[in-house]
Amino acid sequence: MTPSDIIARVLEGQPRAVARAISLAENASPDAPEVLSAIYPKTGNALVVGITGSPGAGKSTLVDRLAAFYRKAGHRVGVIAVDPSSPFSGGAILGDRIRMKNLVTDPGVFIRSMATRGNLGGLARATGDAVAVLDAAGFGRIIVETVGVGQDEVDIVKLADVCVVVLVPGMGDDVQAIKAGIMEIGDVLAINKADREGVLRTEKELENLLTTGHREDMWSPPIVKTVATADHGIDELSAAIDSYTAFLDADDAMHTSRRERIAAQRVLDLLRERLLRDALARLEPGEFERLTAAVASRDRDPYSVVDEIVGGT
Amino acid sequence: MTPSDIIARVLEGQPRAVARAISLAENASPDAPEVLSAIYPKTGNALVVGITGSPGAGKSTLVDRLAAFYRKAGHRVGVIAVDPSSPFSGGAILGDRIRMKNLVTDPGVFIRSMATRGNLGGLARATGDAVAVLDAAGFGRIIVETVGVGQDEVDIVKLADVCVVVLVPGMGDDVQAIKAGIMEIGDVLAINKADREGVLRTEKELENLLTTGHREDMWSPPIVKTVATADHGIDELSAAIDSYTAFLDADDAMHTSRRERIAAQRVLDLLRERLLRDALARLEPGEFERLTAAVASRDRDPYSVVDEIVGGT
Repeated sequence: MTPSDIIARVLEGQPRAVARAISLAENASPDAPEVLSAIYPKTGNALVVGITGSPGAGKSTLVDRLAAFYRKAGHRVGVIAVDPSSPFSGGAILGDRIRMKNLVTDPGVFIRSMATRGNLGGLARATGDAVAVLDAAGFGRIIVETVGVGQDEVDIVKLADVCVVVLVPGMGDDVQAIKAGIMEIGDVLAINKADREGVLRTEKELENLLTTGHREDMWSPPIVKTVATADHGIDELSAAIDSYTAFLDADDAMHTSRRERIAAQRVLDLLRERLLRDALARLEPGEFERLTAAVASRDRDPYSVVDEIVGGT
Repeated sequence: MTPSDIIARVLEGQPRAVARAISLAENASPDAPEVLSAIYPKTGNALVVGITGSPGAGKSTLVDRLAAFYRKAGHRVGVIAVDPSSPFSGGAILGDRIRMKNLVTDPGVFIRSMATRGNLGGLARATGDAVAVLDAAGFGRIIVETVGVGQDEVDIVKLADVCVVVLVPGMGDDVQAIKAGIMEIGDVLAINKADREGVLRTEKELENLLTTGHREDMWSPPIVKTVATADHGIDELSAAIDSYTAFLDADDAMHTSRRERIAAQRVLDLLRERLLRDALARLEPGEFERLTAAVASRDRDPYSVVDEIVGGT
């Protein structure tokens, strides 16, 4: 497929072209900017839902159930499972997802897992590109699931229109950190595995947290209890997600501000990677390795090396 | 303190100057490069131990115990607690650390928590700078603890000489992802809370994983069982950490390759941030906001905007 073929077929919603366009983005192919620029004006129609939370919270199952729920409601659904923690596990996530196999054979569902590749980073950038491709291809609901709980995940879910933080009853030592993360990014809180002991205490803790915390936009995140494995609470989760978008839609300024924040992050993600790639491409072959070896041996310091690389551009 | 005061006092090991130098790095102050370049030749003497793992694994307690163990062995110890997941929780981590208060009043221990600030990222870079400062100041053992489990955490622990991945008995759904992360970065595996049910099964699972997995350097990570809250297993953990450094030291090529990988990452972290900062500084005031608003409204696409920013430099 030529870039213009890909563009035309993505806009027709053809899954193979969608897959191809996402691969171009993921591999930072030279054809990627042409394809992605061309489809960009057709984006902005999908509802993008980010789902994050601690390992073990049952996010994958919850995502599968939500995807099935949206599908049943008549939407074409895209799922992007992002695993920033390892270059190896992209396959594992998808392979593990046997319960989703009825969705996999449905042409109205597009599932893709993405993982980090190499030193240049760019996972948030590539995820943003993948969302744009699905959006332009007419997928009305796009779910972005992240496996980890770090900054990269926060950056990724910030690209979503609505962020769901998934928790489980009885959280551990690092609850302070989790709480802080919730305050920052959670538009909706889901307590999954809500058939477990401690669910009421966790709910109470979250309620207390929400009353003491404050968010600039004065939105109080709804708390939804789910048991994803039993398909319980998915409709409430969907309703909570919709309540946040309705809240945003009711206030033009807030809506615009969120869209602009997402756009700013997209531009920064693209810019960061582009600048680094260009700077490294301008070095002589072997120069980067020579410089870093000198830093490793303490013959040079990294600060002056960076000066040299930047100055030499 | 002038930059040259700070440099002199850091090299004398004065805690206030160390704190000041780290703040310069964290805030990307214009004085930071001068200070950090000057001290860099004095680095490379500390053993830098990275500690990561899932939320709830008890990392903080383990770090506290290991710090106390090193202190007792006569080392000056630096602890850097990194929380990439939120700009808010830097204080929380440290505030929560009441059990460490006997260490806090010991001038041979320096504790610092660091969190993300703003859009430019740079947490891995700033953490690397903080390690360099402590190293140059003569702290013989530096522990870098990360709260999350995402790419940023991986980048951060990759700056360490030895990486400890902390697990707990009975891991959840996302075990595939955790496993993949372990294969990538764990030089030593600690099963903390090893007085809990399921410890033997977790140990068995890890052993199976290690025999099926493969690492380029042919190192088989030792598995250590700890109960940090009861101060159990800390000596074994320290011995396992030492066994990895002894393994590296026995092979010049491998040792050099690890140092060069760390140096390469440091240079990339610094370069990435510097390039982005410079590119944004070259824009007219308000230009970035104007461009991102145009992207948000779909009047422009982010790819051509990045072209414009890069082309205009």
